Amino acid sequence: MSVEAVADIGLIGLAVMGQNLVLNMNDHGFVVCAYNRTTSKVDQFLANEAKGTQIVGAHSIEELCAKLKRPRKVMLLVKAGQPVDDFIAQLLPYLEEGDIIIDGGNSHFPDTIRRTKELEAKGLLYVGAGVSGGEEGARLGPSIMPGGSPAAWPHLKPIFQAVAAKADGLPCCDWVGETGSGHYVKMVHNGIEYGDMQLICEGYHIMKSMLGMGNDEIGASFTEWNAGDLDSFLMEITKDIVTFKDDDGKFLVEKIRDTAGQKGTGKWTAISALDLGMPVTLIGEAVFARCLSALKEERGRAAALLAGPKPGVDAKFTGDRALFLKDLENALYAAKLISYAQGFMLLREAAKEQGWHLNNGGIAIMWKGGCIIRSRFLGDIKKAFDRNPELENLLFDPFFASVLERTQSSWRRVVAQATLLGVPVPALSSALAFYDGYRTAYLPANLLQAQRDYFGAHTYEFVDAPGSWHHTNWTGRGGRVASSTYNA
Amino acid sequence: MSVEAVADIGLIGLAVMGQNLVLNMNDHGFVVCAYNRTTSKVDQFLANEAKGTQIVGAHSIEELCAKLKRPRKVMLLVKAGQPVDDFIAQLLPYLEEGDIIIDGGNSHFPDTIRRTKELEAKGLLYVGAGVSGGEEGARLGPSIMPGGSPAAWPHLKPIFQAVAAKADGLPCCDWVGETGSGHYVKMVHNGIEYGDMQLICEGYHIMKSMLGMGNDEIGASFTEWNAGDLDSFLMEITKDIVTFKDDDGKFLVEKIRDTAGQKGTGKWTAISALDLGMPVTLIGEAVFARCLSALKEERGRAAALLAGPKPGVDAKFTGDRALFLKDLENALYAAKLISYAQGFMLLREAAKEQGWHLNNGGIAIMWKGGCIIRSRFLGDIKKAFDRNPELENLLFDPFFASVLERTQSSWRRVVAQATLLGVPVPALSSALAFYDGYRTAYLPANLLQAQRDYFGAHTYEFVDAPGSWHHTNWTGRGGRVASSTYNA
Repeated sequence: MSVEAVADIGLIGLAVMGQNLVLNMNDHGFVVCAYNRTTSKVDQFLANEAKGTQIVGAHSIEELCAKLKRPRKVMLLVKAGQPVDDFIAQLLPYLEEGDIIIDGGNSHFPDTIRRTKELEAKGLLYVGAGVSGGEEGARLGPSIMPGGSPAAWPHLKPIFQAVAAKADGLPCCDWVGETGSGHYVKMVHNGIEYGDMQLICEGYHIMKSMLGMGNDEIGASFTEWNAGDLDSFLMEITKDIVTFKDDDGKFLVEKIRDTAGQKGTGKWTAISALDLGMPVTLIGEAVFARCLSALKEERGRAAALLAGPKPGVDAKFTGDRALFLKDLENALYAAKLISYAQGFMLLREAAKEQGWHLNNGGIAIMWKGGCIIRSRFLGDIKKAFDRNPELENLLFDPFFASVLERTQSSWRRVVAQATLLGVPVPALSSALAFYDGYRTAYLPANLLQAQRDYFGAHTYEFVDAPGSWHHTNWTGRGGRVASSTYNA
Repeated sequence: MSVEAVADIGLIGLAVMGQNLVLNMNDHGFVVCAYNRTTSKVDQFLANEAKGTQIVGAHSIEELCAKLKRPRKVMLLVKAGQPVDDFIAQLLPYLEEGDIIIDGGNSHFPDTIRRTKELEAKGLLYVGAGVSGGEEGARLGPSIMPGGSPAAWPHLKPIFQAVAAKADGLPCCDWVGETGSGHYVKMVHNGIEYGDMQLICEGYHIMKSMLGMGNDEIGASFTEWNAGDLDSFLMEITKDIVTFKDDDGKFLVEKIRDTAGQKGTGKWTAISALDLGMPVTLIGEAVFARCLSALKEERGRAAALLAGPKPGVDAKFTGDRALFLKDLENALYAAKLISYAQGFMLLREAAKEQGWHLNNGGIAIMWKGGCIIRSRFLGDIKKAFDRNPELENLLFDPFFASVLERTQSSWRRVVAQATLLGVPVPALSSALAFYDGYRTAYLPANLLQAQRDYFGAHTYEFVDAPGSWHHTNWTGRGGRVASSTYNA
C-alpha cells in the first residue's frame, strides 16, 4: 500500500475515551491516525468531532500502520482481555522491529507482563499505560502511568507528557517501570480510589445518621474540609453531590439506591495484597463494603430481625457536635494516610517480587493531577519521597508521623463513638487496627504460632533466635516430628 | 500381573498423615494397600507401624492397582499441585471404568473441578476430599469432606464414615456435593480456623496488655470460657498453651516470636470471597493480621516512631475487670458467630456459582468433630439448619439472633475500649462493622453510586425503582452518555 507516513501515533478504539485522547493529542500538535473496528465510527468522528483538525483516519489495520511514522506507535483503547490480544495479533504483520504498541486500557497486570515478554521476544516494544481521569480527563489532561519496554519511553515521552495533566508544573505522567508496572500502579490507584470513596461515605453516614445533619450542613462540612488537609477531587465532587437538587427541589443523592457497583480493579488490588502478603486492609474493607451494600434485600430482612442501636432513632450522639466534626475530619485524614501508606507498601512488595524499579515520588506526581484520587495530600507524599527516596514506609516520614500524632486521639474517639452507636465504619476502624498493630513491636502472634505448633507441628521461632525453628510436644502425646504437609 | 485383588482401598503417600489414615482404616476392618514413590518407605512402614495388621504393600502403581478390589479405590495423600496430576497420569493405564481416585490432600478447588471433569470424561470417578484434624485426627478420627463424582459416594461411604470422627453419634463425614465442593468446604473450614485463631489472639492480647493479666489468670479465663458457649478444641488447646511452662519454669508462649506463618488456604478463602463478591471480612482481616505480624522488624522501627497509647504502659484499663472479662467472652462469641455466618454466606454463593447442592447441616456436623474448628457451637449451627434447611443466613435463626441481641452491647464496649486504649482488634471490630452494616436497610452507598456517576457516568438506580439505570449531568458540563469502558 503506497500511503504517506504522516501520523505521529495511531489510536485504535473510538469510544468516548479514545476520541477524547485523540483530540487532546491533536490539540498539542501531534498528528493522530484514528482507527476503529466498526469503520463507520472513523468516518463519523472525522466528519464531526475531528472536523477541521489534523487528525487522519484509517479503515484497516494495514492502512493505519502504513500511515505511521517510524518507529510506529499504536495505542489501543479497547476493552481489556481478549480484544487486546486480538488487535495485537492483527497488528503484528504490519509492524517491524522497534515499533511500539501501547495498551491504554484497564488490563490486568499479569496480562501486560505476558504481552510485554511476548512482543519483546519478537523485537517489538510494548507499553501498558494506565490512564485515569475519565472522559473529561482524557480530553483535557489525564494521569498516564506507562510501564513496559523501557526503550519505548523516549519515543512516547513527548506525546504523553504533553497531553497529560500538570501538577505543580510537572506532567502527571512519567515512566513507571518494567513490564506490567504501569498497569499495576493504575490498579493500586483504583484500589486507593475505592478506599477514599469508602472513607468519605463513612463520614457522610456519621454526619447523616449519627449527628442528624441535613444535606446542606453535610455539604458545608465537606466544603470546609476540602479547603484543608482533605482537599481533593473526590471531596470536591462530594460537596457538590450532597447538595445537588433534583427537579423537584429534593436532594438527588437521597433518592439513589444504596447498592454499590464495581468493575473489579479494587478487587484485583485486594487479591494482589493477599497474594503478596501485604496487609492492605483499608482497600480490602472498602471492596467488601461495596459487596455488603449490594445485598440490599437481605439487609432489609436483617434490619427487621437483628438487634442493636439504631443511629438517629434510639442512638443519638449527645456530645459537642462541632468538636466531633473536627474529630471526624482528623479521623478521615489519619485513615486516608494509612490507606496510602498501605498502597505504597503494596507497590514496594510488588516491585520486589517482579524486579521493577519504581519511582515512588514520580508515582505521587502522576496521581496528583488528572486522576480521580488527585489531592493536595499527594504533594505531601511527593515531598516525603523527595526528602528520602529510600523511605521504607510513608508513616516513617516526620511530616506524616506528626500528622498521626496530632490526629490519632480524634480518630479513636470517632471509631469508638460510631461503634457504640451502631454506625458501621469498616474502613476507619480497620485502618486504626492496622495502625495500632503496626506501631507495636509485640503482637499476639506468638500464641498463634504456638497453636499451629500444637495441632499441626508447624514449629516456631524464639523471640531471641529468629531463623531457628522448634517444635514442642505440648500434650505429651505424639512424636516430635514436624509436619510439612498439613496446611493451616 | 497375576496378583490377587485383596485390598478394599489403596493409599498413595506414606507421610505421617497417610500412614495414620491407613492404620485407622485397618483398625476398622478394611484391607488397605499402601504405596509410596520412595518404595523403601513401604517396607519400613510394613515392618514397623503396620506390623501385625492386615495392611498390604505395593512397590509399583501397577502392583497397587492389581491388588485392589473393583471398583478400585485409590486415595492420594500427596503434596497438592503437580504431584496429584502426576500420580493420576501414572494410575490411568491400570484403571478401568467406574474406578475411583480420591485426592485427600489440600488441593485448591479449581484444580479439583478440572480433574473431576477430566476423569469423568474418561469414565472414571473422582473425589476431592478435604481431611482435617492433623496427624492425631488422621489416626483416631478425622473430619472428612468428600465431593466430586456422586456415583463414587456409595463405594466410599462405609470406609470414610467408619474412620471419621463422630459427633453427637453422627460421623463427621458426609457427601458434600459435586466437583470441587469437598475441597472448597475444606478451604472455608481453614479460613474459619484462621478467624477463630485470630479472635482468640485478640482476646489474649486484651487480657495481657490492656488488663495486665498474667498467664495463669489468662489461662483461667480460657478455661472458664471453654466450659461455656466458647467450648471448642482451639479454646481448649489455648488454655493449655498459655499456662505451659518451659524447662526453666517460664511460660513458653511468651518466648515465642510473634510472627505468624501461613500456608495459603486462608488466603484462598479471602480471594474466593472477593471473587464472589461476598463480604467475608473477618477471615480477610485474620489473614492480613498474620501478614502484619510477619513485618516484625519493620514494626519494631515503627514502635519507636509512631504515637499513640501504649497498652499496659500509659494506657490502662480502669473499669471493673470482672465485668469486662464477661464482656470479652460475649464479644468473642458474637464475633465468632459473625465469622461462621460469613463462611456459610460464602458457601451459599459458591454453590450458586458452581451449581453445587450443598447440605449445610451436614457441613456443620462434618466440622463438629475431628477437625481444628470443632466446637459445641457447631451443634447449634446444625440445629439451626435442622429447624430450617432453607435458612437464608445463620443470623436469621432465632437462637443466633437472640445470642447477638444478648451479646452485642458487650461487644461494642470491648471494641470501643480497645480502640481507645490502642490494642488492635481487627477481627472483633471488622465483624462488628459487618454486623452493623448488615442489619441496616440503609448504607451510604447511595453517595458512592453518585460519585461513580459523577466522574465516570456509571449510572445509578433510584431507591424506589431498582433495575432502571439513570445518569445525571452533575456539573452541567459533558454529555449525558453513560460510560461502559472506564473501570472504577
